[in-house]
Amino acid sequence: MDASQSTMSKSVATGSPRRVTANVSIAQYLIQRLQDYGIGHMFGIPGDYVLSLYSELEKSPIEMIGCTREDCAGFAADAYSRLNGMGAVCVTYCVGGLSVCNSIAGAFAEKSPVVVVTGSPGLKERSSGALLHHMVRDFRTQYEVFEKFTIAGAELSDPLTAFAEIDRVLDACDRFKRPVYLELPRDMVHVVPPIVHGYRGSSHVNDQQATTEAIRETSRLIESANCPVILAGVEVHRFGLQDELLQLAEAANIPIATTMLGKSVISERHPMFIGLYEGALGDQAVTQFVENSDLVLLLGAFMSDINLGIFSANLNPARCVYATSETLRISHHHYHNVGLKEFIVGLVESGLVPQPRSIPEQLSSTKRSSSKHGEPGEGGLRTSWMMSRLNRLIDADTIVIADVGDSLFAATELTIHERGEFLSPAYYTSMGFSVPAALGAATARPDHRVVVLVGDGAFQMTGQELSTLIRCGHCPIVILLDNHGYGTERYLHAGDWKYNEIHHWNYGKLLDVYGCGKSHYAETELEFEKALQDAWDTLDQPHLIHAKLVEGDGSDTLKNLADRMSKTVG
Amino acid sequence: MDASQSTMSKSVATGSPRRVTANVSIAQYLIQRLQDYGIGHMFGIPGDYVLSLYSELEKSPIEMIGCTREDCAGFAADAYSRLNGMGAVCVTYCVGGLSVCNSIAGAFAEKSPVVVVTGSPGLKERSSGALLHHMVRDFRTQYEVFEKFTIAGAELSDPLTAFAEIDRVLDACDRFKRPVYLELPRDMVHVVPPIVHGYRGSSHVNDQQATTEAIRETSRLIESANCPVILAGVEVHRFGLQDELLQLAEAANIPIATTMLGKSVISERHPMFIGLYEGALGDQAVTQFVENSDLVLLLGAFMSDINLGIFSANLNPARCVYATSETLRISHHHYHNVGLKEFIVGLVESGLVPQPRSIPEQLSSTKRSSSKHGEPGEGGLRTSWMMSRLNRLIDADTIVIADVGDSLFAATELTIHERGEFLSPAYYTSMGFSVPAALGAATARPDHRVVVLVGDGAFQMTGQELSTLIRCGHCPIVILLDNHGYGTERYLHAGDWKYNEIHHWNYGKLLDVYGCGKSHYAETELEFEKALQDAWDTLDQPHLIHAKLVEGDGSDTLKNLADRMSKTVG
Repeated sequence: MDASQSTMSKSVATGSPRRVTANVSIAQYLIQRLQDYGIGHMFGIPGDYVLSLYSELEKSPIEMIGCTREDCAGFAADAYSRLNGMGAVCVTYCVGGLSVCNSIAGAFAEKSPVVVVTGSPGLKERSSGALLHHMVRDFRTQYEVFEKFTIAGAELSDPLTAFAEIDRVLDACDRFKRPVYLELPRDMVHVVPPIVHGYRGSSHVNDQQATTEAIRETSRLIESANCPVILAGVEVHRFGLQDELLQLAEAANIPIATTMLGKSVISERHPMFIGLYEGALGDQAVTQFVENSDLVLLLGAFMSDINLGIFSANLNPARCVYATSETLRISHHHYHNVGLKEFIVGLVESGLVPQPRSIPEQLSSTKRSSSKHGEPGEGGLRTSWMMSRLNRLIDADTIVIADVGDSLFAATELTIHERGEFLSPAYYTSMGFSVPAALGAATARPDHRVVVLVGDGAFQMTGQELSTLIRCGHCPIVILLDNHGYGTERYLHAGDWKYNEIHHWNYGKLLDVYGCGKSHYAETELEFEKALQDAWDTLDQPHLIHAKLVEGDGSDTLKNLADRMSKTVG
Repeated sequence: MDASQSTMSKSVATGSPRRVTANVSIAQYLIQRLQDYGIGHMFGIPGDYVLSLYSELEKSPIEMIGCTREDCAGFAADAYSRLNGMGAVCVTYCVGGLSVCNSIAGAFAEKSPVVVVTGSPGLKERSSGALLHHMVRDFRTQYEVFEKFTIAGAELSDPLTAFAEIDRVLDACDRFKRPVYLELPRDMVHVVPPIVHGYRGSSHVNDQQATTEAIRETSRLIESANCPVILAGVEVHRFGLQDELLQLAEAANIPIATTMLGKSVISERHPMFIGLYEGALGDQAVTQFVENSDLVLLLGAFMSDINLGIFSANLNPARCVYATSETLRISHHHYHNVGLKEFIVGLVESGLVPQPRSIPEQLSSTKRSSSKHGEPGEGGLRTSWMMSRLNRLIDADTIVIADVGDSLFAATELTIHERGEFLSPAYYTSMGFSVPAALGAATARPDHRVVVLVGDGAFQMTGQELSTLIRCGHCPIVILLDNHGYGTERYLHAGDWKYNEIHHWNYGKLLDVYGCGKSHYAETELEFEKALQDAWDTLDQPHLIHAKLVEGDGSDTLKNLADRMSKTVG
């Protein structure tokens, strides 16, 4: 393997490499191709149908990171994929594969390019007619389930097609930024196909004429608009279009807002950035600016409920250009087969003349950074206040990962310094994402500080992945927001329901279980301040800050959201 | 609700009850019907698409037990179903439902009647065209996934058919002893259908003539056999046919062996019980007796690999009668639509004349009970020795739950006193089953002592469900077999692979996290003996016995198994 292959995502697209495949087994080819896409680590748990493949991985340059649970491995691979461009999970048949369904469904919903690699019973042993262990209904069950949340898949059961199938499936992962599925029967792992094979590149082409027309129409709209705005979504990050986006914004002098899922697609300190657009939920100055705009360029954004403020977004489609990797709609008409990158680059190159437009004072980045919250005192802990303190410490080397619930909503109040340094499942909203995601993030960015915001309910689901973070020598800061249960649901559905309560844990003692790290307990602002500062100053060990919130606390964003959602939850 | 409804499984079959459904909402009807089948507890985690249903459940006689994770709730419901006759899990849409895939797949594979109840987005809110949170591909994704591992399902989206659909789906669960799926959009929870509805009973009928002919043929085979044997499987327990099975065995004087998955379908101290049949893996006296038999009646048994000794079973189909709830094969021909119960009852009533046959001395229950293992000393801990000590303490009020790996294989060496008091995922073999299953078992049998055998790898997956056991006031004894990793895999696949290692935990300190219980650490026989006895004598608190095994230890059964499997793992 030569060094150029670490940036294969680019060279793959141009058609190389055509390497010699003589004496290369199916497993070896798969491992090479995963490395071509920059995958240096995989996550998973071994099991008997995948042991031979695990052994091949252990002999390869790819580092296999064993997790405590398969779904955690899925979340870790998802976070790794978001930061690295592609990631992979490797699990055994059914008991492993069916345990990552939820993680992979989340990656599908939020467009994270995760390769699911799974073992399966050997082809020869299937013919006995006996029921093999781990089997559910028939040998195809797992494959059929994964068809629901992967964009491409293959069972590598034929040596003549296995290499081409691997190419096709990994291409799809790279192109669509969605999970894909590769199933390798255990007796195919070492099979060397009797063929010569070279990767030929992806065959997809866009519609050039539609692209040209769409660019022409949009550039005219931009030039005639008085106060256009870009609403940038997560796809800008997934497809690596941040530079192109900024070129467009600067070429035409258009300010940029982002969606919740798209938070941090560009640096939130960039002068063109005006804030998060969340409809009725978020900063009303941003909402008014976006909704009063006469041209909203939605670029790579998901039109999802939470992402757009639970139906409270008030965008007139007639004044929108809605472009994603899958669709392009201008006003009420559609263009097909126009690439998102080609569209944005085309706009940049269309010779837009920058109009003299100014960003309102209250939306400037300097204005936003000033905190509305005070210095620490003896008072109890409130989430928004904690965010303001965290905000002071966040720097360019900080990755923030927010779990679901008020962790997510409160985190929208943070200012992220660098691109892509905020991770959360803001659309699929699966609880328990954050701690395993921290493993993926720390693996992809070992030089960064990873800060996790997680509620107690979410932490009880997957908190044991702290064990793997510790085992791997990572030093995250986990801020556990304890409101003794599913606090967000108390806001969503009126009534004093027992089902929102969870068992009290002495969370700090978990570090005694895992054998490393420093635990902090905070009930007051001063205690939290001290804990946070200590964690920030002591980089060489993991920290768990158990923050006991004031009874009934909720961030402003959550209160706005709950007010909205309570009308629909019923 | 009258008292008779706790045994509704019987009365349901005869067509009652026809209750008045005026002013009964869809949620209320569902809750009534679940109670008809004896469901008094459900397991799950709330989420916004299912909050209204949770509130209805909280107001109902059904106790809702909140778990730490959805997959744990699935395992708990599975164990509860195995002991109670039916059980249920209630989760939110996708992030909840797709998190129980693996648990429900296991229940499907091992025929455990679990009702999966899930919320989903309201029908009205779907029409907006926006992407609703938790959605994967489209609104049907979750339903389509569950079609792969449920025997029936319905989306309760039409008030006119909702009650009949609930009846149909629960009937299927009861009849096939497989999971079923009910999805309730959140705006349908309180809808009162404008109809009068009464349950009409199941409409399934067996083929009487085929049944008569099959019974006649089988009873002749029994009468002419010299040394017939019954191989009883787990369906005998699932369908409540233990009495009928014993009547058959006694009427014709036929000894009974069981499969691994069927372990404890009858008391293992019954004089007709000769032991577990596991092909080449288990007790060779049992294997020889079964394989030399001239008529093997396989009743309710799964022909699975592990269940039958990884292909090492050597049964000649020409000398077998293979009857399950789904199939009936005598020698090489098949009967269709013959009920398992009708078949067994028919044999009992066919006037079989008991032949004078004696059970070989070494297969008698008194012989088997005598331990081959010695009194405790200073030596290190070996699994089989620990089983022999546990065997001395097990009584009629003990439920043993074995996780996957050597926990399961070693547990085959235990003698279970009462029917159905051994639980394990012996066919699907999903790690992490045991601790959540203990929650289900303790809920279904609060008067029993629950003993869990679990490896460290499995415990790291779902051990946090100890928190819920503690929260509910249960007092299990968890015996954690620590071999610092996936020990079974070390036997299956030669080589010193890093991927089988897991992070060391100070397991005992978990009880400090959960705030209750007594932890024990044992490295020697004497330490284990003391811990086990203390746990047995102190019934009023949970116990966690961290048993550090001798390096490389494995039970005899595991060694036999590994020897077999290493030839196929490849």
